[in-house]
Amino acid sequence: MAPLLPIAEALTQVLARAPRLGAIAVPIAQAQGHILAHDLCADRDQPPFDRSAMDGVALRAADAAVGAVLPVVGTAAAGTPFADPLPQGACVRIFTGAVVPPEADSVVPVEQVTLHGDSCTLHAPCRPGQHVARQGSEVRAGGVVVAAGTVLTAARLGVAAAFGHAEVQVARRPRAAVVPTGDEVVAVTAAPGPGQIRDSNRYALAEILRQGGAEVVHMPVAADRADELHRALSSALRTADVIVTCGGVSAGDLDLVAPALRELGAEIHFHKIRIKPGKPLLFATIGDKVVLGLPGNPVSAAVCATLFALPLLAAMQGATATRWLLAGVPLALPLPATGPRDEVVPLVPVTAQGQLAVLPVATAGSADVFAFSRATWLGIRSAGGAALAAGESIDVVIWPQLP
Amino acid sequence: MAPLLPIAEALTQVLARAPRLGAIAVPIAQAQGHILAHDLCADRDQPPFDRSAMDGVALRAADAAVGAVLPVVGTAAAGTPFADPLPQGACVRIFTGAVVPPEADSVVPVEQVTLHGDSCTLHAPCRPGQHVARQGSEVRAGGVVVAAGTVLTAARLGVAAAFGHAEVQVARRPRAAVVPTGDEVVAVTAAPGPGQIRDSNRYALAEILRQGGAEVVHMPVAADRADELHRALSSALRTADVIVTCGGVSAGDLDLVAPALRELGAEIHFHKIRIKPGKPLLFATIGDKVVLGLPGNPVSAAVCATLFALPLLAAMQGATATRWLLAGVPLALPLPATGPRDEVVPLVPVTAQGQLAVLPVATAGSADVFAFSRATWLGIRSAGGAALAAGESIDVVIWPQLP
Repeated sequence: MAPLLPIAEALTQVLARAPRLGAIAVPIAQAQGHILAHDLCADRDQPPFDRSAMDGVALRAADAAVGAVLPVVGTAAAGTPFADPLPQGACVRIFTGAVVPPEADSVVPVEQVTLHGDSCTLHAPCRPGQHVARQGSEVRAGGVVVAAGTVLTAARLGVAAAFGHAEVQVARRPRAAVVPTGDEVVAVTAAPGPGQIRDSNRYALAEILRQGGAEVVHMPVAADRADELHRALSSALRTADVIVTCGGVSAGDLDLVAPALRELGAEIHFHKIRIKPGKPLLFATIGDKVVLGLPGNPVSAAVCATLFALPLLAAMQGATATRWLLAGVPLALPLPATGPRDEVVPLVPVTAQGQLAVLPVATAGSADVFAFSRATWLGIRSAGGAALAAGESIDVVIWPQLP
Repeated sequence: MAPLLPIAEALTQVLARAPRLGAIAVPIAQAQGHILAHDLCADRDQPPFDRSAMDGVALRAADAAVGAVLPVVGTAAAGTPFADPLPQGACVRIFTGAVVPPEADSVVPVEQVTLHGDSCTLHAPCRPGQHVARQGSEVRAGGVVVAAGTVLTAARLGVAAAFGHAEVQVARRPRAAVVPTGDEVVAVTAAPGPGQIRDSNRYALAEILRQGGAEVVHMPVAADRADELHRALSSALRTADVIVTCGGVSAGDLDLVAPALRELGAEIHFHKIRIKPGKPLLFATIGDKVVLGLPGNPVSAAVCATLFALPLLAAMQGATATRWLLAGVPLALPLPATGPRDEVVPLVPVTAQGQLAVLPVATAGSADVFAFSRATWLGIRSAGGAALAAGESIDVVIWPQLP
């Protein structure tokens, strides 16, 4: 039996086969969370003029001395510049965001002056250039202000708008179909009979996929029969770019997803990887469609969706950063040695003596969805790893790693 | 002049005055990101039965010995339990998720047996209880599975659904009105004249507020005139639970937001705090409405919204965790000493020798929105702090800190 793929290599395979989606134009007010398809450039210098960073008086630093009294010859407010030349030895009242008159080079904050109608006494020394944001000091006209492949976060939406991009080109959102499988799955509103479980995974998976930028299509639960799975998968393939099944991928006789996919002409790139929980994970492609076959266990399903579906969706949308960052953070409690698989550990960030640490959530086993739901971060440990003492580091999955 | 409020104390004041919103019922499929209003309890044990964690055979561990051959007397599949009593010395074929027959106590994985039609040879020793998740081992019927005051993350949605909660009681979303102010503000589609800037802050602020669970109402830009501000604020107060203004709060003569609020009967709890950037921040209440007066500088506005509006919105929705965690993380580059204000530093998470570190983003000043947009984390340094060398720690804002 070939050795199972480590997590990192499985992710590499998924990313290598992610189909790239096309771009669409969206208004800036609806672009949040989208991946930008083209660079956005500055249509003018930023700041667009020498801009006052404070309320106070604008003057030539050479005219400023502690105790000096200067005539105030006018006012510069945001949107209303002082239009005349600034006479030698004079100052203008200026407000935050206003144009600094070209003859002035500095702003003395209002807290450091006394204003008496049309004159002003200075109470503090003035460093040339102080409190003036120079035109173009942040970016020059034509420079890239938001790069293609980045996700449009709040701050980037603001930058895009500041440079006049009322509409932006972004990757269209991937359509992701969620296909739960299994005879034992009953509706959330049903009272499960013996051996039955509720159709709960779809809600967790839909939210993970939505966070990855997908439009989620909910498909009915497919029963454990080859014909029904075939029908469900065919329908999902017609509807969606990504098909996320849940259940039916373990080693047993009722694990019908892989055969159904093969019958539909899919190429199965891996089925089972070196991960705990989530070993039965399956990854396949059919033409430009992608299938992630998640295990039915809720923790396995959520872990695999987080570690593989989020990067997949990012890659489909042309994101520059598609891999999570693995960064060592000290453990607040010890962990036992790992077994033959890479292990995913539910974590909560805490502080220990003021420093960031992570606390492993106590679980009743790797299928304990209730414990998993209390975690906010995930850690990854390699197979065959030694026990870790408190204070030793565990690799934490930092996602999204925005470029 | 009274000393300015440190960031942490300003946050305490905001949280202390957050009005509490009522609860509404929403279907589980639309509950993502909402704050749960009531505890959700388990309607049955979890697992609801002794559940097989593997595909294989279920048997009594006492009957298992390496090389033993056992009759296979039936099958237990997920949703289809084996209905008869398990004879002494026999086993049943079992699949992941299936009920382990009451007489059996262990599961031997399919990889460790050879199946020959109606008998089975064991190839590995069996530890009693192995690969069986015991009924109730994760939670007992009646136990709280998702606590009131927690945010409904993907995993918690799955847990809620697993226990039959098709509909959940959550805090209604706060309505937040965004009111940009300033004569210098022109539409995003406009070519700004001298001294003018585009109406860009609203897009960044709307996204931050949306992430905090708010429904955002966009108001027109209010000009710098007392009557117009009065009208804009009155309109926002009729529409929204939270009013977020932007601009018009600095120390100058054109800073008209505070007077307009006072005229409307607002109580101003603070105006100016010990923060850089963002010093002019204003916080007021009028009856059960809350006003955050953000500075017009885009970085200041986004920083203050992140640090104050997100906790405020969480508190309004009854969240248990309303303060960000401040956790020390090593710096990848040095930082100079801080001045008389607490300083907010844009950061990017990186690794240094495999360990988590944070890289301060190079800026052209605290108003450099372009630099700020490249950061994904924020750090906070106290006023009067010494210079920090690479490797020394900076306090990073970890948010949301999910309970």
